Amino acid sequence: MTYTPTPQLVLSTSKWFNTPQSFTLSELRGKVVVLFAFQMLCPGCVTRSIPQAIKMHEILSKSEVAVVGIHTVFEHHSVMTEDALEVFIHEYRILFPVAADKPSLESDIPQTMQALNLQGTPSIIVLDRQGHIRLNHFGHVDDLLIGSVIGSLLAEPVTQ
Amino acid sequence: MTYTPTPQLVLSTSKWFNTPQSFTLSELRGKVVVLFAFQMLCPGCVTRSIPQAIKMHEILSKSEVAVVGIHTVFEHHSVMTEDALEVFIHEYRILFPVAADKPSLESDIPQTMQALNLQGTPSIIVLDRQGHIRLNHFGHVDDLLIGSVIGSLLAEPVTQ
Amino acid sequence: MTYTPTPQLVLSTSKWFNTPQSFTLSELRGKVVVLFAFQMLCPGCVTRSIPQAIKMHEILSKSEVAVVGIHTVFEHHSVMTEDALEVFIHEYRILFPVAADKPSLESDIPQTMQALNLQGTPSIIVLDRQGHIRLNHFGHVDDLLIGSVIGSLLAEPVTQ
Amino acid sequence: MTYTPTPQLVLSTSKWFNTPQSFTLSELRGKVVVLFAFQMLCPGCVTRSIPQAIKMHEILSKSEVAVVGIHTVFEHHSVMTEDALEVFIHEYRILFPVAADKPSLESDIPQTMQALNLQGTPSIIVLDRQGHIRLNHFGHVDDLLIGSVIGSLLAEPVTQ
Repeated sequence: MTYTPTPQLVLSTSKWFNTPQSFTLSELRGKVVVLFAFQMLCPGCVTRSIPQAIKMHEILSKSEVAVVGIHTVFEHHSVMTEDALEVFIHEYRILFPVAADKPSLESDIPQTMQALNLQGTPSIIVLDRQGHIRLNHFGHVDDLLIGSVIGSLLAEPVTQ
Repeated sequence: MTYTPTPQLVLSTSKWFNTPQSFTLSELRGKVVVLFAFQMLCPGCVTRSIPQAIKMHEILSKSEVAVVGIHTVFEHHSVMTEDALEVFIHEYRILFPVAADKPSLESDIPQTMQALNLQGTPSIIVLDRQGHIRLNHFGHVDDLLIGSVIGSLLAEPVTQ
Repeated sequence: MTYTPTPQLVLSTSKWFNTPQSFTLSELRGKVVVLFAFQMLCPGCVTRSIPQAIKMHEILSKSEVAVVGIHTVFEHHSVMTEDALEVFIHEYRILFPVAADKPSLESDIPQTMQALNLQGTPSIIVLDRQGHIRLNHFGHVDDLLIGSVIGSLLAEPVTQ
Repeated sequence: MTYTPTPQLVLSTSKWFNTPQSFTLSELRGKVVVLFAFQMLCPGCVTRSIPQAIKMHEILSKSEVAVVGIHTVFEHHSVMTEDALEVFIHEYRILFPVAADKPSLESDIPQTMQALNLQGTPSIIVLDRQGHIRLNHFGHVDDLLIGSVIGSLLAEPVTQ
């Protein structure tokens, strides 16, 4: 598989949960990173993606794979607030870091969602150990398939 | 089966969704009524009870069985607002009537939740054709079991 | 609901499992009887109907509802033998009575399957407390729906 | 990950299904091979492993991953015959190659099952592109986990 190297992704976030301090994706260099872009009032996110993310965080090695949620609100902004997200994270027993995407001043689409050119939620984005985007998929990805993508990237050496 | 007749239940509601006008349970006299008490940020409600209510509304006869949701917020009131509920109902494609339980002035427990003495969410309450409560259960009830309860009540004559 | 009374069903069986002695459906008079017609090499039977029958046997009152399996082999007779059925019943932890339908001399369709005019497997047949057939359905029936059918029949009085 | 190279596995088979001619694992050199050891009357095999194998065969690249079933009968030999297996494969719509493990003369455990030292069914065995065993697991393996194992092996170069 060849691919076009992508520029490093910078998350624009307004608030972090489940982490003692905010971090950048470059600090995760060396790990495979799986970003779950979701909205808390998106049924497909809640019934399929969040459970997949929770399972991934539970069963894959935390020293090798970083699972990160990003709450990319592009509709119904007034009710999917950071306060509501905090309750959601607590009630669904989400233990991995979750960032609230930073709202845009000119658009309903928040900044990281724009940077990633996401088409909606749920979306799943996978970065290799160098921080390059290797998968950017709108919709749910079957466990078997996303597992094989992650496994392939885990097998790549950490080159400088 | 014998049972202690219960007084008629009066829903205290602050807002109705999916119905042209508010109604009282006494207007449903003659039907078996299944009340689903839920909170939109309760995982058990969202992943099990709401899908059961949607299926019940789809496959059982609407002239015989009335499915009614009641949003009984007893925690995190500031984020489970009526505006948020409206989005939730839309996103989850809920088509049956849903009432927002009326907040209490003295307690976090809203009024209908108090009247029904509910222990939490999800709860399922089944009323017979006379409007008497015949089941009041905290937690999910298996489809087979709730189906048999409804079937039994459907077979009872509508006496005056 | 009105219905045409059906003649009493007589099971033609060649062997019984999970019962100290063979019995006739008339001995179950007074109970609602749910017959599950299946073949052990029918995927729909194994993945949907048998689990439903096991759950029904577990959670509904055994003094009110009798769950009975009937192995109606109409194809691949040489491999779906009574010996194989015995292993199947053991491995799948089936605890309710199961009868092997009696082979026909003139046809691939066994005798009870003919008497019930079944179209294939799985089929579910429900008898009321008087022993009359009230449902005869080819294919799986959702738990909620079959539950409501059983509940309705349970509510009927046992008339003589 | 380091591992002890294992000797090449030779399947001892008495009959093949879904393949124009029998083949050896060495002919699959260059592919990652996933062996599903099952018995047709083992509930865990039928409800979890066979569906996983079918999905794996459907969604992973057939030029990269070979899915192979092996029917390792170690109990109830008289009813889990090759004739019964043929019906099972047909009814469950299994399209990948399946081998019947070769019975042993001295033991109930068939030959390949002995060679692989399997503890029971279902078991899943994964071979790398060189034909070495890299996973040998008794019981079901979650899709996400087995996917990541396969992905990692796919990323390994095909060395001579």
